[in-house]
This record gives sequence, C-alpha cells and structure tokens, in this order.
Amino acid sequence: MERSNERQAWINGEFVPESRCVVSFRDRSFKFGDGVFDMTRTFGHKLFKLDEHIDRLYRSLSYVRIDPGISPKEMKDITEELTERNLHLIGEGDDYWVGQRVSRGTFIPEADIHSSSGPTVIVECTPLPLKARAALYRDGIAVVVPATRRSPPDSFSPRAKSHNYLNLIMGDLEAKAADPEAWAVLLDQNGNVTEGMGSNFFSVRDGVVRTPRAQFVLPGVVRQTVIDLARENGIPMEECDIDLYDAYTADEAFLTSTSLCVCPVRSINGNRVGGADAPLPGPITQRLSDAFKDYVKFDFVAQYLGSLDG
Amino acid sequence: MERSNERQAWINGEFVPESRCVVSFRDRSFKFGDGVFDMTRTFGHKLFKLDEHIDRLYRSLSYVRIDPGISPKEMKDITEELTERNLHLIGEGDDYWVGQRVSRGTFIPEADIHSSSGPTVIVECTPLPLKARAALYRDGIAVVVPATRRSPPDSFSPRAKSHNYLNLIMGDLEAKAADPEAWAVLLDQNGNVTEGMGSNFFSVRDGVVRTPRAQFVLPGVVRQTVIDLARENGIPMEECDIDLYDAYTADEAFLTSTSLCVCPVRSINGNRVGGADAPLPGPITQRLSDAFKDYVKFDFVAQYLGSLDG
Amino acid sequence: MERSNERQAWINGEFVPESRCVVSFRDRSFKFGDGVFDMTRTFGHKLFKLDEHIDRLYRSLSYVRIDPGISPKEMKDITEELTERNLHLIGEGDDYWVGQRVSRGTFIPEADIHSSSGPTVIVECTPLPLKARAALYRDGIAVVVPATRRSPPDSFSPRAKSHNYLNLIMGDLEAKAADPEAWAVLLDQNGNVTEGMGSNFFSVRDGVVRTPRAQFVLPGVVRQTVIDLARENGIPMEECDIDLYDAYTADEAFLTSTSLCVCPVRSINGNRVGGADAPLPGPITQRLSDAFKDYVKFDFVAQYLGSLDG
Amino acid sequence: MERSNERQAWINGEFVPESRCVVSFRDRSFKFGDGVFDMTRTFGHKLFKLDEHIDRLYRSLSYVRIDPGISPKEMKDITEELTERNLHLIGEGDDYWVGQRVSRGTFIPEADIHSSSGPTVIVECTPLPLKARAALYRDGIAVVVPATRRSPPDSFSPRAKSHNYLNLIMGDLEAKAADPEAWAVLLDQNGNVTEGMGSNFFSVRDGVVRTPRAQFVLPGVVRQTVIDLARENGIPMEECDIDLYDAYTADEAFLTSTSLCVCPVRSINGNRVGGADAPLPGPITQRLSDAFKDYVKFDFVAQYLGSLDG
Amino acid sequence: MERSNERQAWINGEFVPESRCVVSFRDRSFKFGDGVFDMTRTFGHKLFKLDEHIDRLYRSLSYVRIDPGISPKEMKDITEELTERNLHLIGEGDDYWVGQRVSRGTFIPEADIHSSSGPTVIVECTPLPLKARAALYRDGIAVVVPATRRSPPDSFSPRAKSHNYLNLIMGDLEAKAADPEAWAVLLDQNGNVTEGMGSNFFSVRDGVVRTPRAQFVLPGVVRQTVIDLARENGIPMEECDIDLYDAYTADEAFLTSTSLCVCPVRSINGNRVGGADAPLPGPITQRLSDAFKDYVKFDFVAQYLGSLDG
Amino acid sequence: MERSNERQAWINGEFVPESRCVVSFRDRSFKFGDGVFDMTRTFGHKLFKLDEHIDRLYRSLSYVRIDPGISPKEMKDITEELTERNLHLIGEGDDYWVGQRVSRGTFIPEADIHSSSGPTVIVECTPLPLKARAALYRDGIAVVVPATRRSPPDSFSPRAKSHNYLNLIMGDLEAKAADPEAWAVLLDQNGNVTEGMGSNFFSVRDGVVRTPRAQFVLPGVVRQTVIDLARENGIPMEECDIDLYDAYTADEAFLTSTSLCVCPVRSINGNRVGGADAPLPGPITQRLSDAFKDYVKFDFVAQYLGSLDG
Repeated sequence: MERSNERQAWINGEFVPESRCVVSFRDRSFKFGDGVFDMTRTFGHKLFKLDEHIDRLYRSLSYVRIDPGISPKEMKDITEELTERNLHLIGEGDDYWVGQRVSRGTFIPEADIHSSSGPTVIVECTPLPLKARAALYRDGIAVVVPATRRSPPDSFSPRAKSHNYLNLIMGDLEAKAADPEAWAVLLDQNGNVTEGMGSNFFSVRDGVVRTPRAQFVLPGVVRQTVIDLARENGIPMEECDIDLYDAYTADEAFLTSTSLCVCPVRSINGNRVGGADAPLPGPITQRLSDAFKDYVKFDFVAQYLGSLDG
Repeated sequence: MERSNERQAWINGEFVPESRCVVSFRDRSFKFGDGVFDMTRTFGHKLFKLDEHIDRLYRSLSYVRIDPGISPKEMKDITEELTERNLHLIGEGDDYWVGQRVSRGTFIPEADIHSSSGPTVIVECTPLPLKARAALYRDGIAVVVPATRRSPPDSFSPRAKSHNYLNLIMGDLEAKAADPEAWAVLLDQNGNVTEGMGSNFFSVRDGVVRTPRAQFVLPGVVRQTVIDLARENGIPMEECDIDLYDAYTADEAFLTSTSLCVCPVRSINGNRVGGADAPLPGPITQRLSDAFKDYVKFDFVAQYLGSLDG
Repeated sequence: MERSNERQAWINGEFVPESRCVVSFRDRSFKFGDGVFDMTRTFGHKLFKLDEHIDRLYRSLSYVRIDPGISPKEMKDITEELTERNLHLIGEGDDYWVGQRVSRGTFIPEADIHSSSGPTVIVECTPLPLKARAALYRDGIAVVVPATRRSPPDSFSPRAKSHNYLNLIMGDLEAKAADPEAWAVLLDQNGNVTEGMGSNFFSVRDGVVRTPRAQFVLPGVVRQTVIDLARENGIPMEECDIDLYDAYTADEAFLTSTSLCVCPVRSINGNRVGGADAPLPGPITQRLSDAFKDYVKFDFVAQYLGSLDG
Repeated sequence: MERSNERQAWINGEFVPESRCVVSFRDRSFKFGDGVFDMTRTFGHKLFKLDEHIDRLYRSLSYVRIDPGISPKEMKDITEELTERNLHLIGEGDDYWVGQRVSRGTFIPEADIHSSSGPTVIVECTPLPLKARAALYRDGIAVVVPATRRSPPDSFSPRAKSHNYLNLIMGDLEAKAADPEAWAVLLDQNGNVTEGMGSNFFSVRDGVVRTPRAQFVLPGVVRQTVIDLARENGIPMEECDIDLYDAYTADEAFLTSTSLCVCPVRSINGNRVGGADAPLPGPITQRLSDAFKDYVKFDFVAQYLGSLDG
Repeated sequence: MERSNERQAWINGEFVPESRCVVSFRDRSFKFGDGVFDMTRTFGHKLFKLDEHIDRLYRSLSYVRIDPGISPKEMKDITEELTERNLHLIGEGDDYWVGQRVSRGTFIPEADIHSSSGPTVIVECTPLPLKARAALYRDGIAVVVPATRRSPPDSFSPRAKSHNYLNLIMGDLEAKAADPEAWAVLLDQNGNVTEGMGSNFFSVRDGVVRTPRAQFVLPGVVRQTVIDLARENGIPMEECDIDLYDAYTADEAFLTSTSLCVCPVRSINGNRVGGADAPLPGPITQRLSDAFKDYVKFDFVAQYLGSLDG
Repeated sequence: MERSNERQAWINGEFVPESRCVVSFRDRSFKFGDGVFDMTRTFGHKLFKLDEHIDRLYRSLSYVRIDPGISPKEMKDITEELTERNLHLIGEGDDYWVGQRVSRGTFIPEADIHSSSGPTVIVECTPLPLKARAALYRDGIAVVVPATRRSPPDSFSPRAKSHNYLNLIMGDLEAKAADPEAWAVLLDQNGNVTEGMGSNFFSVRDGVVRTPRAQFVLPGVVRQTVIDLARENGIPMEECDIDLYDAYTADEAFLTSTSLCVCPVRSINGNRVGGADAPLPGPITQRLSDAFKDYVKFDFVAQYLGSLDG
C-alpha cells in the first residue's frame, strides 16, 4: 500500500486523493441532499464500533430505498482500509472521523427527473476538530433551544442519518445568532427535546439520567453506549419525553456525539444548569465520562484539553 | 463566444464544460443539502420570467442565510449568457431548464463543523424531458397522495426552494410504488393538499379554480401566472385550504410546474377525476392551458405531444 | 333443537333464519352506525376466548352509553346456542366468525331526533372466507399505508369496536386503488402506525417484536394472545410507538386478527419486508404462528392453505 | 296512485310501506355505517332546494366511492314521487323531512370482507318533530361545547354527509348529560367551533355575522341560504375561524339546519349569549329569520310555536 | 412568641396579621400572575412532607427564573414557625393548608416594563374547607371534562405550580355551568386526561390503577404518595396516557390533592363510574384511602365526614 | 378636586394614593392571575381611544365570566377622572399609560376554594418609560423568536387581555437571555408569528404590509389603527398567517403597541431586516409612522427621541 501525502477517499470503487473525490453538480445528493451517511471516529487510531455504524447506515439506506450495490462487509473492509491509508497523515495525539456517504446517484439529463446512474458511494475521513472544540470541555457547552422544530417522523424520520440537514442547520443558525459559541438542541412538534446537529442530549435530576426516546432523534452509537454504561454502573437511566421544564430544572446536562463522546452543558437558554455554583462537569456526568474513557480505553477529555492554546 | 460540443455550466466565476462542473464531497450541499436553487425554462429558446425566478432565489438565500457573493443582476447576466452558450446544442423543438444553485460552501476539515469556504455558485441548464413526459398530456397525470406529510413551516419552510428534497422524494417513492407513472402530491400536517416534487396542484369545481395557499407550498412562478390568467379571463379563482374531499369531488384537476406549464390530472388515488366519462383535459383546464400558450406565445402542449413515439 | 337449512341469527329475543334477521331503515345503526359489536371465531368448531370478546363488547357499550338490556352471561349463552344451531351448516374443515351487534335502537318518527325504541341486539355467525384469503398465507400480505389517518381518540376512541368504519374504509379504498390485493394499515395523527380494518400490525427487528400501544388501536384478543405467547416463549416484545422508519427497516412483519390469527406481511408500500431474499414467513413470525397453533390446538395455516385452488 | 294508510318508502326500485322497508343485518350501513345520505324538508308541503341536496348527495357518494346505480335526475324524481305519496298522511300544519340514503350494499358471507351486493338505495320521509322542538323557538337553544372534538378532515371529511355519526353522538351525549335539553356544538382539533349533529353555528358581534368555514363542517343548504340572505340584506357576513372567545363574547348566536331553519341560541356553556338582558332572538337573528321566512314564503317560526302545548 | 387573635402571615421578612399582608397593585403576581407557590397541609396539626413541597417550590422557581433570595432551609423554618404561630386559632379537629408564594416583585413605574423590586415572598396558612367538601366523601365527586384543554408544556409547563390559573379556571367554570358541584378534569392537546385545579386523577380497571404521566400534570405530592402506597401494597399501578375511553370504562376513579388526599369520583360527564350499582368508594379506592390514613396516621375521611351538617 | 403629591389610583370605589392601593395576598389575581385589564395611553395628556379599550375590557370580562359590578360608562368616567387627578404630576413632555384592572375578588378562607368576595376593580396610571425605550426609535428593536409557543386559543384565548402573562414572560426571558435588549415575538402551535408581550408584529414585503390574524393575538387598538391607516393611505394590507419565512425575507418590520405606537424592527433572530444596508425605519414603516402621528396629532417619535441621553 503506497503512502500518500494527501488524504485519500474511496469513491465508487477506487481510492483517490481527496482533491479528486468530486461529484457532478448533477449528483442527487448535491441537488437534493438525496443520500445518507454514517460516521464513527478513531480513539488512539482505532475505529470505534464500526459494525454498529455500518448497521445503522444500511438501515438508513433501507428507509430511503437506496441500494448501495455493495455489502455491509465490503463497506466495512473499505472503511478499514481507508483508515489505514490515512493514519500516517495525522499526529499521534490526533484522531479521525471516518464515514461512508451514499447518494442515490447522478441525474441523467436526457431522461426524466427521477432517473439516475447508479449510486455514488464515498468512504472518507476527516481529522477531528480537537482544538476548535477543546474549550467546551473546560467551560461546558452553551445550549440554545431555537424556535425551529425538528422535522416530524411522518415528514422524514430523524432516525435515518441523511444528507438533509437544513432543518438542523436553521436551528443552529438561530442558536449561533444568540451566542456564536452556542449549540442548538431542537424541540419536536410536541415541545419535547430532541437533538442537536449530530449530538444527543442528556439531563440528570436527583441522580436519574434521562435522554429523549429514540423515535424523534438519531439514536447515536455513543448515546447507546452511555445508556449501557449508566446501567452497568447502577446509575438510574430513562429514555423518556424530556421538555424545557426538565432542562431548566436539571442538576446536570451533557451532550454526546461521535466526536464529543461526553461533554458537559454549562447553560440552557442562558440558565446555568444546576444553579450558579454547580460544578462542571457535575458528578454523574463525570462518572459517565470516566466510564466512557474506561470503555474505550482512551482519555478523550485529555485529548481535547491538550489542544487548548497555551 | 466559442461554441462547444459539450454543454457548459458556470461555477464560481467561470464557464466550464459540464463534465468539469464538479464539487468536492465536502461541499455542504453534497453532505447536508445545504443549498438553494431556482429554475426557469425556455419557451422556443427564450427564458421565461427570469427576474421572478432570480427574485425567489434571493429570498431562499435570505431565509437560509447564505450570501452568494454576487448580485441579482450579475446572476441574471450569467444565466442569460449560459443559456446563450448552450442553445446551439438542442434542436429547434427542444427547450432547456435553466437554473442557479448556491451551496453554503465546502467544509474545511481542519476547522470546526460549521466552517466553510465561500459559497459554491453554479448556473446550469438541462434539456427538458419532453419525450419522457409527453404521454402525460395525452393521458393525464395519475396523482397519488402518499402517507408522508410535507414538512411543516416551523421545521423548514416549503417556500424556500432548497436542496433538501428527501421529504418530497419519500412521498414520490410511495406514489411510484403504487403506480410507476404516478406523481405524488403530499398533504400537510393538517391534512390539506400541498404540492408535489416541483409541481403545484389545482382543482376545479362548479367553475371555480382552487389552489393551496402559498404558505405550505413553493409558490411557483407558473402557479402565479395561472392564477393571474384565471383572473384576467374571468374564471373564479381561490387560494385556500384544499383537502381530499375537494380532490375527490373535483370536476377537473391539473398540475403546474416550470416544465409542465399546465398538465391535466387523470386520477387521484385511483379515482377518475370528474367521473368516468369526464373529458381530459376538462374545459376550464383547457381554457387555462390555452391562455398560458397565448401568454408565452408558445404551444407547449404541441411541443410535448410532438415527442410521443410514432 | 330443530335443525334448519338456513343459517340462523338471534335478534331481540328470538332465533330466526338470517333472511328474517332484518332491521328498519330507521335503525340508528343503519342511519348513524350508532352501534357496537364484537366477533370471535371458532377453531375446529370451538369458540375462541368468548369471555374476552364479551367483556370487550360491554366496554364498548359503556363507552357509547348503550344499555343492551341483557347481561354478559345471557349474551354468552345466546352466542353459544347460536353457534350450536349453525355448526351443522358448514363443513368439517370450515369455521365461523361468531359475533354480537348492538344498535342503540330504532328512531321513532313522531318523537325527536334522539328518541329511539330499545336497543337492537343481534347475535350472528358467518363462515370464514378461507378460500378468499388462502393466498395470503402463501404470498404474504401487501400492506399499503394510506394518506387517511386513523381517527384520534378525542374524536372517537379506536378502542371501542363500533359500527363506524368509514375512516378505516376510506383508508382501505386508497390501499386497494394502489393494489387490489393490498390491506391498509393507517397512521395516527402523530404519524405512528395503528391498525387496519380489523387487524393489528406487528414488526420484528433484531429479534424484538413490536406492536403499537393499545391507545390508538382496537386491542385485539389475538393481538393480546400473541403478546402473551411471545413473552412465554422468551421472545422480546414491546408495545410502543412504531412509525414508518420501523416499518421500512423491519426484518419481518405480520398482521393479527380474529380470522387471520398470524399472517405474514410481504411488503409495505411496495418495499419487500426484510429485503429481497427474506424468507416468508420470517423465523420469528413462524415461531409465533406455531405457538399460536399450539395454543389453540388447531393448524389455522393448514386450514387456509387447504382452501387454495388446486 | 293509490293512497295508503301507512307511510311509504322507496327501496331499491320499489315503493313499499315503511314497515317493509328493512335491510339485512349484513347491510354495510348497519354494520359499518358505510353509507351516505341527504335530507331536505317541505315548507307548506313543498320540497326545499331539492336540487342542491341531491347535488350534495352525489358529492358525498363520490367521496366515499359508492356508485348508487341511478342518476341524480332519477333520484330527484323518486324523491318527488315519494313525497307526493305521503303528503296526505300529515296535517296541513305539518311538514316532512324527505331524504335519500345509499349504503354500499349487503355483505355476502361466502365472499371476502370487502364484497357486497349492489348498493342499497332508500328514499324516505319523516314528519318533522314540531312539538318536540317548539320550545326552542320560545326559549332559545342551550348550546354545550363538549370535550369530544369533531373528526379531522384527514380521518373523514365532515363535508360528506355520511352514516357515521358516532363522533357527533358522543358529543351530544356529553351535552345532554350537562343539560337534557342542550344541543352540542363541537370544536375541531384546532379549537375552532364546527357544528352540531346536523346543525350549523352562527354568531353575531357588533353587527357582523360569522359562521365557521366550510372545510370543517357539513356546508348546510340552509347555512348557505342564510349566508346569501345576509349578503342580500346588507348584513356583514364572514365565513371564518370562530373559537370560544367569539362564542362567549357574541351579542347573538343561532343555529341553522334543514328542520330548524334559523333558531336562536340562549346560552353557550351556561353563559347567557349577549348578557343577562339580551332579547331573544337578537335583532340580527330576527332579521335573518324574517328574511328566511320571506325567502321560503313560509312562517316556520309560527309553525313551531303553534305546536306548543296550550 | 406572642399569641394573636388574627391569623398571621409572613411577608418579605416579617410576620404580620393577615389583614396587613398586602401587595401593591403593581406587584407582578397581581398584574401578570408572575409568581409560583406551593402548599401542603397539616394532619392533626402536623405538616405533611414539607421538604418535598419546598423542593418542588424551588423547581418551579428555577423554571420561571425567579430567585427568592432565601434558601430552602430558611423557607422551611419560616413555614414551620408560621404554622406554629397560627395553630391555636383552629379547633382540634381542624387543619391548615400551609404554603409559600413568591412573586417576581413589584413593578417600578419609572423604569421599563421588565424592571421590578426584589421578589415578594409570602408564607401563609388557610383553614381547610372541611365542611364545604365533606359531602364529596359521602357522595363522590362529579367530574366534568370541559372543552378547554390544559395548556401545552411548550407554552407553559403544567409541572410548575404557578400563579397562572386561568386555563384551569376556564375549565372549572365550564364544569360548574354543567353542575355547580362538579369538578373539572381537563384533557391535554392530544386528548389525554391531565388534572383538575389542584387535583390529580386516577382510574382503576380490572384491578390496575392508572394515573396520567407526570409530564402534563403537576406531579402532586399526594399523587406520588398514592403511587408509592399502591406499589407497597401490591396493587398494580401505571403512569400512562389515559383518555376518555379509560375514564368511561373504569371500574373506579378517584382524585387526589393536598387537601382531598383520596376522594372517590362518582361520575364522569354524567356517567356513573363502574355502572349504576358500583359501591362508592370502590374496593381499590378504599384500600388506597385506608393505606393513606395509615401512612399519615390520621383519618382524613372521618375528619371530612365529621363536618357534615347533622 | 384636591391636588396630591402622590399619584392616585381608584380601587373599589375610592381614589387613594398609590401607596394605599393594595390587595390582599388572598386576592385571586395575586394567587391565580385571575383577572383582566386594559390599558391606553395619553398623547399630549389626552386619552387615546378610551371607548375602544373599555369595550375590549368588557369583552375580556365576558370571556372569563367576571362581572365588575360597574357599567362601561362608569368605568370610563372613573378613568377620565383618574387621569385628570394625576396629570399635574408629570411634565409637559411626558405621558401616561392609563388602565383598568379587574380581579375576580378575594378568596374567603372559611369557604371553599371557589368562593370570593366581590371583584377587585382598580383604575391606575403609570408614566410611560420614554427614556428607557428611546433608543428603540433610533436603533430599531432586536426581535428574538423564542422556543416557547403562544398558548393556544382552546387553552386560553390570546384575545382576552388577562393577568396570566407567564407564557409571554417565559418567551421574553429566552429572548433577553440571547440579547438583553431584545423583545420576544412568539410563534403559535402551527409555527405562525403571533405577538410579543403587549406588542403586535407587522412585516412589509414588496410594498404589502402583513400582520397576523386576530385569532391568535390580542387585537391591539394601535394595531387596528395602523391597519385602517394603511388602507386609507392606499398601502396594501393583509391580516394573514405569517411565519419565519415571511419574517426572514421581509423588506421591513415593525412592532405596534399602546406605548410604542409604531417602532421599527432592526433584526429578527440576528438577521438584519431588509439586508445589511436597509434604512431604518424602512419607507413604508416611515409612512405609517407619519400617518399615525397625523392621526393622533402628536409626534410620538420626537417624544421618545427627546428622552435620549445627551
């Protein structure tokens, strides 16, 4: 396997330098966001729960009726090889997001609007933005709940990880208008908390950890890992409807995501979580963060904090 | 101006052959559908209401907070030049879709998830699928109303013409599963008729033409032209809530779109519109179709029917 | 007990030949659907869980505030005698639906709109349509999810088994317009799967069986039996919200009803359940179907398949 | 034409005495309420706007996809003859409801659940309950708004006059539990006023008459007549959303229906409409009631009040 | 501690006779209901679960972002002293409601609309209305479900015990218009049963006790006590969605509140709970009422019934 | 009429210094917000449209079923006298808010929860916060749309001006957390723009002025005046559903209220209205502001701007 100075991506059968991993402006995912993806990360250069991510990818594909033309096993092999080919390009202390993207294909002008070539399949990796996010582990995340509501399941299920992100982006733009460092967490049509752009929300009250039910959110692999770790560690844990009353009266709150793992929330709509003098992270968040480190055998918090400017 | 054998597109400042009009897999419109577009057509090689389409494009851009970096006037000039450069590549009887696409830009891996280069702006044209759609003018469109509901305005406004089409695509997949030739027309969260993938719905009952209010649909330029033509021709016309009772008890129905102009609907969920012996198109549809031909000084019906296989 | 050549029914106190079991056009159930019913079946000429059905009937009566004028015990005795009187009219391999219907009564013209005579109570039986449904056990059921939504509980509770079926019939007409052999399964106002016309829906994913919560569906006696059998057989089982994402990504699906017992679903909106090569029925469906046969000590699948044309 | 001592009805092709106008317990309208109807009345023994009622009947038939097998013209002729045959049975001062009922037909046991014979068509008349309702014109109607909400249009359109009345009946039972003389008027899912069981609601405030838009109610023929009369008489009139604020702050309110014509409302949920000393009927209600009398050339109020016990 | 002949209240730092416990008309709780409260009662002159009530008060304060300026411990001490100071003013057989009220403060005219002085904090007690409610324990409560729906959590969470009661008052006015002795229990936006003005609803069917989930109701301290007692006594207990079908088909029903403890419901919308001959209270209600008496070591039923007029 | 050095208020029959205008902590408006109010202002010491405000007050009273015990005429006389008594206490350049507040009365402890003394009626005035708001006329208002939704009409109608403001206050707290100078404008349950705390929203696009329909907002007297002025000045004006698409793509926007009259909006959720270089106020806003000045014969803008710090 040759070593390249440029990161490589895999597209429709071949590994290419990223600069050659391009798609036509007629690709349905460019024109319509008509595609799905999944994404894991490495911890110390090892891929995290790749099987679970590939499984979720194929569920997303089933939901939108796209046949990627390759099997889950092949997808996994390509992902592992892609990772291998790119690891030498990051430092020891760095890690990658690694993911797959499948578009329904490229629109063929002479046919009707629904025709397309076969699917566009891409496997790619991206260095984690450790430095850009490091302060979140020191200061906590400022969550803002925007007026924009998460798309309802009968319009498009939030459980499919698709290339249609404008609903989440609109919410995030609102949050960032209120505070440029804020992360949006959207409500659903019933006023219950759902998720942010790629992140899941957890609250803690009187020792009980709660996270929204999986129907209205993308059920994150880290989210599930944290649920499992809570149960294994004897921390009461509920998947249930959570609303702004829960959020505002929580003792602690945190977000999970592939890249964040477990990251404390400092405030919700400007309200300091747990009151003015609450420790950050709170004690249960700390326990779950530590349990996650043990589980992945990797100190992701140290990795982030190590990227802070001196 | 050189003449090329390949269609050209304009991308970020230059005219290129379409095969070189490509975007990175990191383009936010490929990854997130994070872009908007607009699209008109030519009639006899003349662009239709380009100003109105450009105006709507800039409204979509405002809504999603993307600054394209060029003015409406520049966008118009580019569109006209792009059309000019490509007209020699289609036959006299053919015509183009001509449109603009603006993505928020390309994600820069080393920065955080929200960073991007400047916007990706593309102007492009596509031959109209005259042959593929010709039979619709002879037989009428079979409309199927799927279970999938149009995204609500507080999730993402249907009035912005964006690159997030999965909601409409899911509906269309349902319709095509019922009948491969069918077109989907979706209901909104209240059970009112909205729109199909790029098309607007009209019904006629007792001489009154009705179309859904503009809040829950993309307010098509052809839709507005037909509303105006109805009023100019003394045909009673209402923008109002329309539900399945209206659809099932209509005397006539038709769809409008940039490419279709005015095309009769044969059936809704298998129900023959207007009853078994109703003429196709119905008399009011015919009047509006004729008025549209007069308005654009072009017989679009003849153009479509002329593409039918001999 | 005399033996008749015509099936008998019981109406308001007497057994009569079916041709004499008639009601006035002023009966409120003819005019308004103002009545409730329940229905069990025989397995090998034995009535199935008659007590549970009678109990549900009286709950439906309470909900709509109709007093049938006879006790549950009397209703049961009449039902058993009615069955007895009619069994000689079907073959050994055949079986009956057996049920009770109670209308609020017959409108008396000279009084006001709300007046009526006492209730109309009917007990009746119908041969099961074994031949008409036999192919479903060989090919699986094609489920179509229509645009029509199940009536919400604050309009009329789906848990009462009433004579108001137009909501379900409208859904079924849509499904049959898409595919004449299809069965409709409707969504509720929140976009969750509910039920079809007399049938309950089950999905299977990763070994877990799921069926909609009882609030939005008629809680079928067979549905409850299957839930119990799953639990007794160590098959994980959840009553929960199920939406189209669950349906489209299921490994298996099946319907239950009094007459169907357990019948596999082949496709949902044209999507082959479990993928193109999935066995029919799937393994968990097969286990539950077998457990049901054991429970009722009757091979209902063989009964149906035996009615297939040679 | 022979004169009978018993009222006659027409059923599936023949005139019969009412006591012989019966349907099987397997008729789909008895079992499922699977039918539609329409109903006008006579004024001084003359049928009121029969064409409009027949037109609405055929729209209801289209909506539920029932083909009655006879034309509107035939339906009208039968209705007129039926009326003629029965007029001698009521007194001069009395009048009839006259209507048509169409069921999808009678279920055939040996076929599947969806099969049926041809439709059951009935034309019938009923003496108006003048005496039972007379006090309403003296005292006004006590309206109670129940907790039960009108079925939403995407479950079953209130605009089709069907044999599924349980939703309205449940509301009426609630109202009558509060006050045995009360009439229910239901809200829709958005909290707007819709209709009662066969009646339309109107409010008056500051000289403007308002009635709910036609989408959520059966658009009564009398309702439309009153709208037209208001406009002809220069009384400002709006079809719009009306909620409990409008109802509670109205100066006047009244119900319309085929039989009631225009009848004043005394109270809404126990609140005296217009305040303790408001005249009954209020001045605008009186004007519209008078205009209706003129229009039908018949004093329906005198007819009702004349039936009061001495 | 001096003994006063007038009840005392505590306001912003001092104990005063109630007649001097007054607030400005500019107090935000008078103008806007901009305050929260909590309330427990004494049993035999002992305060019930004061800690739980104070904890809930501080959660309500967090939700509405009011800082009372004193700690939970101080609030508790004041409450206990306030109780002590007033006990000599009631008879042995009587008891008090004892509670805390916190307003955001008094509007200062010269500043803008949002300015206010510091918070207004009041601690007060009120003799329980034993006589006025005694008949409820003998006859049961008549529950009426009004058309008014409980405010949704995304408008204002029912879980915060605030000074905004108009939504509940509007429902109660409807119920009392139907029956002056009736208590309202409201539905939520989905048609599920929530709560009355300060009371929680429980139903019993086939031995299972059910009460609405805590998201849509104020989670009463007595409610939680009854849930715990049911579980300790082996009575199956579910917190779940309850709708009118559950209410109408219940075997038993009861309300709980701080003052009522456990009080049987006789009828719901005029429907006798459990049927005409059902005992009152029903057997499970009796067991829970007895368990509650044991738990508080006080016969609250005897206390109420002892206040009945001779 | 004596002249006092302290502002006076009128309470239950007498004029008192404000410091003596107090209510018991048992007043239902303090405990429950169980009251309504209305409020006009003076322009150059003259009351604005007092009749319209009193009329709206009595409508609010009807809605909540409170009888104030005095007639509209008396209420008007008291209001005028109250104004007269207090005018000498403000400068020439200042003005008053003048309003009426009616609480259902004071709870009587010994009776049941619903009893109360007669109503508490207060008439009061407050100097307008000219200085605190002056900058809004120079800089425009920053509008933030919070996640909290306006209470739906079937919970409590926004059209009644009540003492229950917590829903609006929660929204305002969210907005002020994003920007301490921001004003909240809430969406309704359907995602349409409603109102802020006492203010109405208007947008302008392509020369057409739009404001939300009156059903979901308090129909402000200034709002109606501006609607009338637009029509009189030939400016196209619509009362219609407005959503975030309208807000984000507007050319201009402004708020109206009793105190603000017409005040331009600078930004909505951080988006500069009309684009970066839009004039403030925009041309149509300016025309309406000028028309309002002419109508009231008072330059309210100069009054505000004159209060700016030098």
